[in-house]
Amino acid sequence: MKVLFLNGPNLNMLGEREPNIYGRQTLQEIEAKVRHEGGILGAEVEFQQSNVEGQIVSWIQQARGNFSIIVLNAAAYTHTSIAIRDAISASKIPTIEVHLSNIHNREEFRRKSLLSPVCRGVIMGFGAETYILALRAAVIVNPS
Amino acid sequence: MKVLFLNGPNLNMLGEREPNIYGRQTLQEIEAKVRHEGGILGAEVEFQQSNVEGQIVSWIQQARGNFSIIVLNAAAYTHTSIAIRDAISASKIPTIEVHLSNIHNREEFRRKSLLSPVCRGVIMGFGAETYILALRAAVIVNPS
Amino acid sequence: MKVLFLNGPNLNMLGEREPNIYGRQTLQEIEAKVRHEGGILGAEVEFQQSNVEGQIVSWIQQARGNFSIIVLNAAAYTHTSIAIRDAISASKIPTIEVHLSNIHNREEFRRKSLLSPVCRGVIMGFGAETYILALRAAVIVNPS
Amino acid sequence: MKVLFLNGPNLNMLGEREPNIYGRQTLQEIEAKVRHEGGILGAEVEFQQSNVEGQIVSWIQQARGNFSIIVLNAAAYTHTSIAIRDAISASKIPTIEVHLSNIHNREEFRRKSLLSPVCRGVIMGFGAETYILALRAAVIVNPS
Amino acid sequence: MKVLFLNGPNLNMLGEREPNIYGRQTLQEIEAKVRHEGGILGAEVEFQQSNVEGQIVSWIQQARGNFSIIVLNAAAYTHTSIAIRDAISASKIPTIEVHLSNIHNREEFRRKSLLSPVCRGVIMGFGAETYILALRAAVIVNPS
Amino acid sequence: MKVLFLNGPNLNMLGEREPNIYGRQTLQEIEAKVRHEGGILGAEVEFQQSNVEGQIVSWIQQARGNFSIIVLNAAAYTHTSIAIRDAISASKIPTIEVHLSNIHNREEFRRKSLLSPVCRGVIMGFGAETYILALRAAVIVNPS
Amino acid sequence: MKVLFLNGPNLNMLGEREPNIYGRQTLQEIEAKVRHEGGILGAEVEFQQSNVEGQIVSWIQQARGNFSIIVLNAAAYTHTSIAIRDAISASKIPTIEVHLSNIHNREEFRRKSLLSPVCRGVIMGFGAETYILALRAAVIVNPS
Amino acid sequence: MKVLFLNGPNLNMLGEREPNIYGRQTLQEIEAKVRHEGGILGAEVEFQQSNVEGQIVSWIQQARGNFSIIVLNAAAYTHTSIAIRDAISASKIPTIEVHLSNIHNREEFRRKSLLSPVCRGVIMGFGAETYILALRAAVIVNPS
Amino acid sequence: MKVLFLNGPNLNMLGEREPNIYGRQTLQEIEAKVRHEGGILGAEVEFQQSNVEGQIVSWIQQARGNFSIIVLNAAAYTHTSIAIRDAISASKIPTIEVHLSNIHNREEFRRKSLLSPVCRGVIMGFGAETYILALRAAVIVNPS
Amino acid sequence: MKVLFLNGPNLNMLGEREPNIYGRQTLQEIEAKVRHEGGILGAEVEFQQSNVEGQIVSWIQQARGNFSIIVLNAAAYTHTSIAIRDAISASKIPTIEVHLSNIHNREEFRRKSLLSPVCRGVIMGFGAETYILALRAAVIVNPS
Amino acid sequence: MKVLFLNGPNLNMLGEREPNIYGRQTLQEIEAKVRHEGGILGAEVEFQQSNVEGQIVSWIQQARGNFSIIVLNAAAYTHTSIAIRDAISASKIPTIEVHLSNIHNREEFRRKSLLSPVCRGVIMGFGAETYILALRAAVIVNPS
Amino acid sequence: MKVLFLNGPNLNMLGEREPNIYGRQTLQEIEAKVRHEGGILGAEVEFQQSNVEGQIVSWIQQARGNFSIIVLNAAAYTHTSIAIRDAISASKIPTIEVHLSNIHNREEFRRKSLLSPVCRGVIMGFGAETYILALRAAVIVNPS
Repeated sequence: MKVLFLNGPNLNMLGEREPNIYGRQTLQEIEAKVRHEGGILGAEVEFQQSNVEGQIVSWIQQARGNFSIIVLNAAAYTHTSIAIRDAISASKIPTIEVHLSNIHNREEFRRKSLLSPVCRGVIMGFGAETYILALRAAVIVNPS
Repeated sequence: MKVLFLNGPNLNMLGEREPNIYGRQTLQEIEAKVRHEGGILGAEVEFQQSNVEGQIVSWIQQARGNFSIIVLNAAAYTHTSIAIRDAISASKIPTIEVHLSNIHNREEFRRKSLLSPVCRGVIMGFGAETYILALRAAVIVNPS
Repeated sequence: MKVLFLNGPNLNMLGEREPNIYGRQTLQEIEAKVRHEGGILGAEVEFQQSNVEGQIVSWIQQARGNFSIIVLNAAAYTHTSIAIRDAISASKIPTIEVHLSNIHNREEFRRKSLLSPVCRGVIMGFGAETYILALRAAVIVNPS
Repeated sequence: MKVLFLNGPNLNMLGEREPNIYGRQTLQEIEAKVRHEGGILGAEVEFQQSNVEGQIVSWIQQARGNFSIIVLNAAAYTHTSIAIRDAISASKIPTIEVHLSNIHNREEFRRKSLLSPVCRGVIMGFGAETYILALRAAVIVNPS
Repeated sequence: MKVLFLNGPNLNMLGEREPNIYGRQTLQEIEAKVRHEGGILGAEVEFQQSNVEGQIVSWIQQARGNFSIIVLNAAAYTHTSIAIRDAISASKIPTIEVHLSNIHNREEFRRKSLLSPVCRGVIMGFGAETYILALRAAVIVNPS
Repeated sequence: MKVLFLNGPNLNMLGEREPNIYGRQTLQEIEAKVRHEGGILGAEVEFQQSNVEGQIVSWIQQARGNFSIIVLNAAAYTHTSIAIRDAISASKIPTIEVHLSNIHNREEFRRKSLLSPVCRGVIMGFGAETYILALRAAVIVNPS
Repeated sequence: MKVLFLNGPNLNMLGEREPNIYGRQTLQEIEAKVRHEGGILGAEVEFQQSNVEGQIVSWIQQARGNFSIIVLNAAAYTHTSIAIRDAISASKIPTIEVHLSNIHNREEFRRKSLLSPVCRGVIMGFGAETYILALRAAVIVNPS
Repeated sequence: MKVLFLNGPNLNMLGEREPNIYGRQTLQEIEAKVRHEGGILGAEVEFQQSNVEGQIVSWIQQARGNFSIIVLNAAAYTHTSIAIRDAISASKIPTIEVHLSNIHNREEFRRKSLLSPVCRGVIMGFGAETYILALRAAVIVNPS
Repeated sequence: MKVLFLNGPNLNMLGEREPNIYGRQTLQEIEAKVRHEGGILGAEVEFQQSNVEGQIVSWIQQARGNFSIIVLNAAAYTHTSIAIRDAISASKIPTIEVHLSNIHNREEFRRKSLLSPVCRGVIMGFGAETYILALRAAVIVNPS
Repeated sequence: MKVLFLNGPNLNMLGEREPNIYGRQTLQEIEAKVRHEGGILGAEVEFQQSNVEGQIVSWIQQARGNFSIIVLNAAAYTHTSIAIRDAISASKIPTIEVHLSNIHNREEFRRKSLLSPVCRGVIMGFGAETYILALRAAVIVNPS
Repeated sequence: MKVLFLNGPNLNMLGEREPNIYGRQTLQEIEAKVRHEGGILGAEVEFQQSNVEGQIVSWIQQARGNFSIIVLNAAAYTHTSIAIRDAISASKIPTIEVHLSNIHNREEFRRKSLLSPVCRGVIMGFGAETYILALRAAVIVNPS
Repeated sequence: MKVLFLNGPNLNMLGEREPNIYGRQTLQEIEAKVRHEGGILGAEVEFQQSNVEGQIVSWIQQARGNFSIIVLNAAAYTHTSIAIRDAISASKIPTIEVHLSNIHNREEFRRKSLLSPVCRGVIMGFGAETYILALRAAVIVNPS
């Protein structure tokens, strides 16, 4: 079982960026934790990050046949990208939407996700641990 | 560590009610699973269900001092109850919002939660397994 | 054939409450008329009234297996209760929505019913006679 | 007692048009049933159908002095015609709005009726039987 | 100088229809008054009334070359007819919009006119005298 | 019979201000014309202009007992002043709303008048002649 | 003279619940103060609190004949309950709406009250003293 | 193969009406071109035009069994007619929506079509050539 | 302790203006009553009224250092004046918003106050007695 | 004559992606058909596809001087990209907007195109044949 | 070259009013700085401040012929005054809109300016230095 | 002191693109002017331009530690990019938003900036000179 963790714009700034909201761990540290938990659960893990919407679209397309499940933190593109939404629909790979913070107690424009309707499930608000919970959810959902 | 699972209106119909959306397990069966998992994780679990909004408000108030964390599936009241929202704020107990289905690919009026802004985190869309994930999240969040 | 007539908040005030809108008959008088008409049409009739939303939810749940059809005057909850809507969907019993007055020539907020989309049909505006017409409609709809 | 049944655009297609929504009976068959029921109830019945909004306006105007009550299925014009609304107000004849289907579980734009606020009552969702129920309601309302 | 007075749906009911709003004079009586005033001002006057939107569209088209100015009381179609609006734009004849009542202290949906933006001017609220004022305005506007 | 013509902000710029919209006559020239026409119709005329909302409110209050009718071109305050609206209601003097241009083919925010609902009638779009038509309308309305 | 003070959901948490917003006095302490003031003003005082919407509806209904005036702090139900609104209209007892905090400088959804339009007056923002002011207002309003 | 070209209100004014928007060809000239092209493509062509909404509804109904495809330029009724929409659904004949101009760079109210959702395809913005393109599309779509 | 009572546009018309809404007492009579009550409560009272928004802004600014509390009935400016709102914020003097009538059962545009969010509390609906209640509230709030 | 066909995000998935909506032909197969038809019509054809919004912007800029016309299927970016809209305006090359499916009978958010107002014309709903129709339209529009 | 700096309501409170937002300099201090800078740039500077909307309208009108450019900080009237907007259009003097704070990170109602569409440019967010930047911009824009 | 000037999509077309709106200078010419002015003011200047949203995000991230201030003309992304907004927040570098034209007298969708709330200040409407003014503002803001 292979799980692809896709990370959207500004997530490469984790640890530095508004740590009171996003926590003090870097994306590399989170990746290490998830990889370790994956070892326990028997799931192979891959991490990608990009600031470019179209790159995320391409990764979702290429995941077909290579990954069983996608865990997607689309960050700012969560609220504006129909292209990523279409990529999820087109790829047909079960996708779990995650957010480090609870997007519902932040600005109004962050409360609407264009992606949720085409995702299998949503987990948010548990900081870096959100990724671990998503990995567990991926094992549960695992279609293979 | 004690976790209170509160279930709102019509969740006593689980298993019978629109199983294509909500699954075939009854609330009792889910409770048993969660209780078993709680045994493993060292968390004491209590389940309540009511169709009455004011009853749920009262349970949240009474949880103070008796439970570390609430897992709340407010069902239909998710979208209409300011009273439950106020109870969460007043009780100050960390609360995790859960839904069996992904409320974002259903009717428009189900996409807005009045409760999310005062909850610690949100998990939805994994059927009965959502409760297990919430229990794990509760262990992570555990303030004590 | 058994028909359950459910009456929402303030309908226990009928006869006293704004008689220019709701008429001068009490709910007991209406019940007597409907029961009499039921005798003619061969339909057993039961009347319930509650001011508590959750109680109405429970009655709809319990109707399953005991009644063929529900005639529902949810009064104020018509416009605010997703819980009652979900109970109708969950119970799968054909439900006829009724109102004594024509809700469309009153305040704007009374013009939108959350229940109509899950009801079989709607009858309104004929005062106490609305209940008689609903009974006749119930006989027509009768699924058994 | 004379009752005028007015039918709006495309109702001449009944029986052929989307029978899963509107049923398999033609307007002629419904007319026959209503006429038969009218015989029992002592009500004279007349049926008209037109695709032209202005024609329906004129029939309502001409009903004055000739009919006691109008039963109106304005079909698509229900949602767009202020002219028909004004004709009902101007004619002062009690009017009962009917729809074969429950317009509230169809497209959003069908959920708002411009006519309801000036009608005496509304009945919908019982297929061809809706017309029979309206005839009964007409007998109840009968102002003469 | 020839002026065409076009009257929309239900204006043939003037005198009978809600006289507290529209006054007690019939359209024929108003026509006589306007014709008399036209005699004084040297303006030839023609009156038409129809309940059919498309008929009013056709009269506006045919006015081209035959009339200098149109005075238009489109009644209910004021608020819904883009077709009449387009006819005014297409005919290029200066058009004065009139209403017997002040449409701004009535229902909300009567406060928006689709026709005003393509009309030369608007006069409303002076009952039957509105037509006389419009005739005077027509003499002022007279493009020939 | 005395008629008070009240003119709102920037109307002292008439003749200079965007003459393609408002025409080339100054407010003094319009006043002279109206005064002359008043002489013919037996109506005494007074003109006031102010850029200050509160001043217009005061003039309307003081008109009570001194004038039979007000002709009001509130200009920009038409769309924003509840205070002027309240003054009209409080003074109970019949008021005719006028505009030199047709406010309905200009910016969207100019299409809504807060004053129309409390005015007797509305005339707009005939340039300086609008004031003459309003004077004639005042003679018709004249309550004394 | 008897005055009924009704208190909605979570007001039993007063003193503990967000004291920076609601103050540090418990509902019992406020009741004692109001009772004392009632003694001075010659008004008998009764206090009730419930988290259940339908219970508040019932108390309002039962107040008829037993109380001259109701002082109502409906808390969260202020913004969502048409049922309580209808109960006020049905009971015909003059009702004074109160809030401890100024609901207009809090969340947007708290700024709209469904109850205000059927209440006699509104007082808010003076903490526990709001109840004393309401008692004084009740003495002024006193219909008996 | 027979194709019915239906033309709505004011299209009989083509060539005269705002030629900068709609071009200088009359509807007769366009018809001749289309008929000629139809000869080449082996498609029989019929043209109708009416200003009356109900007439267009009737033509669509009557097309059943007589035409394979409808090309519809509903002009102003595009934005207001649910009746024409229902006729298309009822007739089940594949319908291609056309407009001479690009309706999306005109007034806001012209940007929404009530008909598009029930049409097979849409072509707009190529002036008279739009009809030729639609004929070619009809040949492609041809269900027979 | 000194309290400044500021009164907005048209309140100089009290007693004459729509007495069914605003009561029959003049502002001078209310002032006398308040002054008398002030004598009892040990509060010095000053009354001002203006129809000019900017004048009210200036009075609020000048109150700084001279008055402990402002009682403000901004009348029509309640709904439109950000300038008065800013003056309250800038002056930092505790301000109590009052209205003679209950603004929530009047026109929709009167239901929104721009001032409430920066006021300490709000009292409305008790006619002239509202001012007395506000004086008592001022004594309670008294910051000195 | 050279025509540039630009294809937006996920169109590289054609044939695989939801074939019930988008058909079973790949973009390569469509390109081949268009190129063949171009040979007949004397038009040189170039195809590009990208998932990156900025890449499409750049291609439109670079088309200047190299292509006579652009045929643009912007897919998801149709609804969100002002940047592509600006590029079309800046390049001044006539652009034809195309969609394989009829975007008006899909989700609400797909019904609004930001690009249509700056395009010459729009064609949609004919599957792969839409591209052939667009090529023919390009020949008609051809500005050179 | 002469530049008129107009300052709206409450700007006479600068230095005292919410210094964390507006800074600690008084309007007199800012004026001195601007005057000094004007000496360097060869621009004559005049400052005015008023709390009265109509006064600002009058100053803009009177600027015609006396000043080359206006720098306008309309404060609260920025968001509500169509009268000031009309005065700018009528005077035809190039006007630069300024704000001390960045109005876009404050309350929602401050984010919309009615004046921007008729101003030449906008500068905001640099505190007192905003006025210096505006003076420099005025020199650049200088139409004489 | 180093200032980074970032330019969004289509700004590489400056000079060619709609020169009546954006002026006739190329971005290179503006850069030269700014660099020259920077020499005078002692500020080092760097210019970047990209059509790709994600590239702009990355440049803002990389500016950290390398530049004191960013001047950002995000062009079309101003209105759609939450990703750029988040990058500004994350980088914590003071950012000045600029536009060559006054975006408030253009299309409605250009009037809303997602970036303004996280920028220090905004300058717009002075063509190429806007960049010079921004450089001066940068010197004022200079945090180092």
